[in-house]
Amino acid sequence: MKLYDAELSGNCHRVRLLLALLGKPYDKVAVNMRAGENRTPQYLALNPRGQVPVLSDGDFNVWDSQAILVYLARAYGGETWLPTDARGMADVMQWMAVSENEILYGLARARVMQKFGVPGDIEACRQMGHKILDVMNGHLARRDWLACGRLTIADVACFPYVALAPEGGVALDAYANVRRWIERVKALPGYVGMPGV
Amino acid sequence: MKLYDAELSGNCHRVRLLLALLGKPYDKVAVNMRAGENRTPQYLALNPRGQVPVLSDGDFNVWDSQAILVYLARAYGGETWLPTDARGMADVMQWMAVSENEILYGLARARVMQKFGVPGDIEACRQMGHKILDVMNGHLARRDWLACGRLTIADVACFPYVALAPEGGVALDAYANVRRWIERVKALPGYVGMPGV
Repeated sequence: MKLYDAELSGNCHRVRLLLALLGKPYDKVAVNMRAGENRTPQYLALNPRGQVPVLSDGDFNVWDSQAILVYLARAYGGETWLPTDARGMADVMQWMAVSENEILYGLARARVMQKFGVPGDIEACRQMGHKILDVMNGHLARRDWLACGRLTIADVACFPYVALAPEGGVALDAYANVRRWIERVKALPGYVGMPGV
Repeated sequence: MKLYDAELSGNCHRVRLLLALLGKPYDKVAVNMRAGENRTPQYLALNPRGQVPVLSDGDFNVWDSQAILVYLARAYGGETWLPTDARGMADVMQWMAVSENEILYGLARARVMQKFGVPGDIEACRQMGHKILDVMNGHLARRDWLACGRLTIADVACFPYVALAPEGGVALDAYANVRRWIERVKALPGYVGMPGV
């Protein structure tokens, strides 16, 4: 397997983390986005959105970190990481959606603004981030994991940009249950970190 | 089944559209968000994010339009609307992710800014919308549907805010393949529209 990757991308880290937890070996292909390597015709043929990550598994290519997590869970994780019964899958998908919405457009955006100087309304992003952290903190008060009463790709999807929230100026001090969940993920066999986590 | 709904929400329309295409009867519960009905303790117990839609099916509640589409597909749609093999599911999920990202934070946001006076950088949203419409238009040049060579919940997820794009000042004139795909959806047996589509 080949992962088109950028080291500081939390979206890529979601995929690296699941691959590590699954114990699947793979090769990394570093994509230099500042040099425009994600806008070449070759790369756009892999991913018309021109983003990282992309996963190549034999003759199959899949783009988007959420879709890649679903692919890996179904291909190599059995029912454990993503159940296929309607209720279980919906439970996981609720938090996958949070990872694509408030976590990406709140926490991750605040981080790229603060860390990389990308322009935008950082306070609005931080506020969106705090709102969802409050929801997660309440949800995790009586649960160890986000969905299905066990570790699933919902946790993997949400983890990187929640753990990286302080890099966007969003402190986690007020969210004790979220901090305990972060420590739980970090203690998993096979866990790999990334700069800033 | 009971759908907690707001008529002008494209996120709710995704769910209404799939329910209609599946031929599933349900009751609508209108949630008046301007009156704060989505912030009551009762409503937050249904959905801690305080948003519409929420679906109640017997004793099971599910929030988030993406999760609801997955739930309905798995519970009532068989493999047709959302296949469970790794490649098929990943293909659908790529476009579900687009519906949660560029479509929601580009096209849908431009619409709430223009239509409802919500503050924000409307030009940045429109630009994000045009970029993904260009990607979709290229993708649909040789395909009738977004994923798996057939109608799936990927099409249902992406449809409302793409069809509503002109309400946000994003014209669809340049995207002939997207416009043909919209007409294809509108021609489906059981199709229901919403104001603005």
